[in-house]
Amino acid sequence: MWGVAGLHAVSEYGRAVTASLHLSGDPVELTAALVDIPSVSRDEDAIAESVERALREQAGHLEIVRFGNAVLARTSLGRPSRVVLAGHLDTVPVNDNLPSRREGEIMHGLGTVDMKGGDAVMLHLAATITEPRHDLTFIFYDCEEIDYDSNGLTRLELERPEWLAGDLAVVCEPSNAVVEAGCQGNMRVKLTTTGRRAHTARAWMGVNAIHAFADALRRLEEYTAREVDIDGCRYREGLQAVRVGGGVAGNVVPDSAWLEVGHRFAPDRTPAQAEEHLRQVFEGYELAVVDVAAGAMPGLSAPAARELIDAAGGEPVAKLGWTDVARFAARGMPAVNFGPGDPTLAHTQQEHVPVAQIRRCAEVLSAFLG
Amino acid sequence: MWGVAGLHAVSEYGRAVTASLHLSGDPVELTAALVDIPSVSRDEDAIAESVERALREQAGHLEIVRFGNAVLARTSLGRPSRVVLAGHLDTVPVNDNLPSRREGEIMHGLGTVDMKGGDAVMLHLAATITEPRHDLTFIFYDCEEIDYDSNGLTRLELERPEWLAGDLAVVCEPSNAVVEAGCQGNMRVKLTTTGRRAHTARAWMGVNAIHAFADALRRLEEYTAREVDIDGCRYREGLQAVRVGGGVAGNVVPDSAWLEVGHRFAPDRTPAQAEEHLRQVFEGYELAVVDVAAGAMPGLSAPAARELIDAAGGEPVAKLGWTDVARFAARGMPAVNFGPGDPTLAHTQQEHVPVAQIRRCAEVLSAFLG
Repeated sequence: MWGVAGLHAVSEYGRAVTASLHLSGDPVELTAALVDIPSVSRDEDAIAESVERALREQAGHLEIVRFGNAVLARTSLGRPSRVVLAGHLDTVPVNDNLPSRREGEIMHGLGTVDMKGGDAVMLHLAATITEPRHDLTFIFYDCEEIDYDSNGLTRLELERPEWLAGDLAVVCEPSNAVVEAGCQGNMRVKLTTTGRRAHTARAWMGVNAIHAFADALRRLEEYTAREVDIDGCRYREGLQAVRVGGGVAGNVVPDSAWLEVGHRFAPDRTPAQAEEHLRQVFEGYELAVVDVAAGAMPGLSAPAARELIDAAGGEPVAKLGWTDVARFAARGMPAVNFGPGDPTLAHTQQEHVPVAQIRRCAEVLSAFLG
Repeated sequence: MWGVAGLHAVSEYGRAVTASLHLSGDPVELTAALVDIPSVSRDEDAIAESVERALREQAGHLEIVRFGNAVLARTSLGRPSRVVLAGHLDTVPVNDNLPSRREGEIMHGLGTVDMKGGDAVMLHLAATITEPRHDLTFIFYDCEEIDYDSNGLTRLELERPEWLAGDLAVVCEPSNAVVEAGCQGNMRVKLTTTGRRAHTARAWMGVNAIHAFADALRRLEEYTAREVDIDGCRYREGLQAVRVGGGVAGNVVPDSAWLEVGHRFAPDRTPAQAEEHLRQVFEGYELAVVDVAAGAMPGLSAPAARELIDAAGGEPVAKLGWTDVARFAARGMPAVNFGPGDPTLAHTQQEHVPVAQIRRCAEVLSAFLG
């Protein structure tokens, strides 16, 4: 007994069973089928089962490995180069936006953008490109939307790093069907001020730690973010206060306060350089790094990357947010985002994708790889 | 069966009974006895019982009324003027600082400063000044250390306002045995900023509500507090940020933030004038008044006030914090603080009072009233 229309069902033996997915057909319909298998992070059993089964049944030319709730597939044809395609199977929590719904040329629903459209394109390629120009590796993975340590790619890096190796990585996260290259780094720092507590009726006996942020906020207001061109991509940095707190009681001069600042930095800077820059900007303030993720250089001069850009036509653009592209870049591989959907709709209740973008991504990648 | 040494005990009938207090003896010993009757706000039964009983037994010349856990006493001798003396019987919570402890000329313990020294002086006067120059009203009241509505004086104002009437109020709160006149007003306002939320990777699409406080904090830093002389008392105003908050998540440009600011204002300004002043200082910001208490003019030109200052010798000083003095001032009465103990020690675990200040207050007030 199989679930229909991609909704998973429970067999009479109480075991989750899976939807059947038709891989070589229309990638738009395949997207809808994937969307209709709920797969919130840590609950990817059903979708992983469906993906594994479909690949085993419909892509017999591939070596297929199940790795937890990740599904890995590859060719080993002795081609001179290898392209790795990666897509996560999980979504953020359901928000009254399932099942998928088609309105004309737009498909609505959780995951239509982030990123079952990309997964559908990958599955379509896996089944249809049987004689690729590059050797191919497909990675469908779990737990991308939660913490870094749970991410299927983190586990893969630790336990099966050979599956990540290649000459170009294409992460099929939404990019409006345009090649987005590299990604910016991200650093959060916490500034802390220290004063001296006093009763507000005798404020001159104290030193106000909140007032002490006047200058830091002025520097933030006056900050001119750097813009950088790398490999023809333009990166626009940013420096933003994201949280602030402080205070003791309504009648007390506060003796401590804090300000958390987020910095997006272009990939020509290392985290250490970004930290040094922030220490200069906030000279005189106590500063601690709370969180950091390195950026990724676009690496578009690599031959395989050039081929993809040619196939996609048009100019690549800079990736502004942080994606798993950075993992591949950290391994020395050129890595790009290329997938259907507007990334600014990711994680919103109103996720929706123009179906034309799904088809375009499948066509561009077929031309590039086939 | 009575408790000894001022600690209250429970009789064999399960009813709280009270310490005996010797009113006409040494006010220092009387202070210790009062301190040793625990009387945290809302738990003043035992101390009110002790005070009422002692007054009935040892101050038969007074009319005595029990009003909840407040005890009221007065003369009605037809004198041309009346002085009201007020002191609260409750304390902040016990903090490992009971019972009282004497070290040489210093007495330690909860309430030694705030304000059982003042209560002892009042009880001593009530028993010993049998032929006063002014008619006298003594108000021993409860729940001063908690919310305004529970305060015994609030209840008295509503239900027995005639007990507050007089030509001068002396609130025996700690003032280092110096006449402190009037009190400053107190206003708290909340400033709010509104921006536009955006992902920090695309910060230019947002407007940062935290950055928008740069100018408000600069104005606070540059603010010069007014100093005012009234009736020979110097008042020093203040404007202090007391709490700040804002932020959505580590990767979001925040669309709202708030800053709470406390303002102490000299009693020549009404609350409405203080608010107007703050609206000028923070022009351009959304501002809401959170809390306000009017100040109290010193009123030292009144005859009874002058007599007290003469008896105390030296110059009166401005009261900086807010006390119940302001209630009497709001009724058009001159009102001062005069009591033993350093007010900056109030509410600290280390409360302690030089016993000489207790004796001095008793002597000054005896000379003034006797």
